[in-house]
Amino acid sequence: MDDLASRLLNGEKRALARGISLVEDDDPAGWALVREVYPHTGKAAIVGLTGAPGAGKSTLIGALTKLRREAGREVAVLSIDPSSPFTHGALLGDRIRLTDHFLDPGVFIRSMANRGALGGLSEAALQAALLMDAAGKEDVFLETVGVGQAEIDVIDHADTVVLVLMPGSGDSIQALKAGVMEIPDIIVVNKADHPLTDTMVREIRGVLSLAPQRGWRVPIVKTEASRGQGVPELVEQLEAHRAFITDEGTLLERRRRNLRNEVLSLVAARMRAKVEDQLHEDPRFAELLDEVVARRLDPSSAATEILDRLN
Amino acid sequence: MDDLASRLLNGEKRALARGISLVEDDDPAGWALVREVYPHTGKAAIVGLTGAPGAGKSTLIGALTKLRREAGREVAVLSIDPSSPFTHGALLGDRIRLTDHFLDPGVFIRSMANRGALGGLSEAALQAALLMDAAGKEDVFLETVGVGQAEIDVIDHADTVVLVLMPGSGDSIQALKAGVMEIPDIIVVNKADHPLTDTMVREIRGVLSLAPQRGWRVPIVKTEASRGQGVPELVEQLEAHRAFITDEGTLLERRRRNLRNEVLSLVAARMRAKVEDQLHEDPRFAELLDEVVARRLDPSSAATEILDRLN
Repeated sequence: MDDLASRLLNGEKRALARGISLVEDDDPAGWALVREVYPHTGKAAIVGLTGAPGAGKSTLIGALTKLRREAGREVAVLSIDPSSPFTHGALLGDRIRLTDHFLDPGVFIRSMANRGALGGLSEAALQAALLMDAAGKEDVFLETVGVGQAEIDVIDHADTVVLVLMPGSGDSIQALKAGVMEIPDIIVVNKADHPLTDTMVREIRGVLSLAPQRGWRVPIVKTEASRGQGVPELVEQLEAHRAFITDEGTLLERRRRNLRNEVLSLVAARMRAKVEDQLHEDPRFAELLDEVVARRLDPSSAATEILDRLN
Repeated sequence: MDDLASRLLNGEKRALARGISLVEDDDPAGWALVREVYPHTGKAAIVGLTGAPGAGKSTLIGALTKLRREAGREVAVLSIDPSSPFTHGALLGDRIRLTDHFLDPGVFIRSMANRGALGGLSEAALQAALLMDAAGKEDVFLETVGVGQAEIDVIDHADTVVLVLMPGSGDSIQALKAGVMEIPDIIVVNKADHPLTDTMVREIRGVLSLAPQRGWRVPIVKTEASRGQGVPELVEQLEAHRAFITDEGTLLERRRRNLRNEVLSLVAARMRAKVEDQLHEDPRFAELLDEVVARRLDPSSAATEILDRLN
């Protein structure tokens, strides 16, 4: 067995960090590493936390990490940070809230912002989560802002999805109400010292009452993450949901569906990358695009010709 | 020339409606129709309006439509409605705000909710916009809720992007601030009778001051769409932006980039659909997925084998 793989399986922090970098860089060695350790995955509880920037997800993850560590569990945090180059500050500030745990060898924290690679963020995030799982992390927290398909795809890798709201964040409630946002497994109303907290809880109850019941009753947990308030209740609900999906068999079903989508996405992304490569080399592609821009050839016919040339 | 195509080019409402249905159903006749009328496109001003549900986009489009009709222009509205089956009410309610214009032959209104087809919504929306353009509509308003990659892809088809906010909608501001949401061309603060309007305008100014300047200075327009207030100013800004991108050459550049992405997306979507089809037929694909679920084969290696089998 490869040295990096065995060090990673032994839980070495530096090996895990190296492995994730390889995966993030789309390095063949990263894919080889995942291949080698993949049989050792599937044990971690993967929890996705999503919500608008500013809702307090990082603070909440910090508080969850503290409790999980006290219970003797190994924790990994993967923050998906899609912020654009010009305002890195806003999300990176959140990272600071996790610094309490930076020196704890039982906690591994990583953020990923690579949105350059085609369809890459979601794939890289899954591979990173698999490496964390293989390295013996028992709780993997995936943090995303709930905007954009890439982040939704990331959340699909989670066994349990937690939506973090704060009082007054009307947009998220509207999106839930309109059915634009999927119903999560657990809803947290953070910053629950805000006077509008109970109004918001009532609004959420209203939305949930319209959603189809699928056996699991979505709990609403009020937290003040910065003071640790309500976080033990959240841990209880996370455990209750895990027990539920394990007993019902939905955990396996969900993972099966997600792995299926993952394989298809990898196939599609690699095919698209191949097309992009060929596009750079074949002058006919550039000609076809010029024809489209000049309105002499429609996009669909251009796509058909490209497909024919690929086969 | 095909009868449907010539009727559509003559601006017949029913031919346009029929054409869009064909496109939405992924009917080959729809693609053939777009092919035939494509040389007659590129004239319409395509304006994308995005923002959270409840911000008042439909009311605003209704008010814009009224003004554009008074100026003698033909208008089309395409609402992308990604709401899930269980709460259709929320977004469909908005459609009612456009009823004033349903009987006007110079106005064409359509909503699209098809999110079943793979990568289909964005492609179908572009084709529909092209048909509207070919039918002589001079202003095409694309309405989307700003969540999800599909809607972002739709907005990419617009020449001018308008973000509609309402006072108190903190999430959108946070998303802009964090750089999660792209900076639009024009920002509207609707429901400007709200006491928090000026606070919000200040916040937006703060965010914009951090964004890189690219020649166009993003205006913030305060509107009360339900009373028509501020809408003439919005029309002025829409025209100013159009003049700017036409003079600068960025209109052509933007369309070129979008058409290029469109062709690539069509290619990728068709390839993925082909893979999905083959997956149903070839028992080896199901076996590969079983291996992945059983953690004996990693997703990336499964994707590699599928790609090999396809070539």
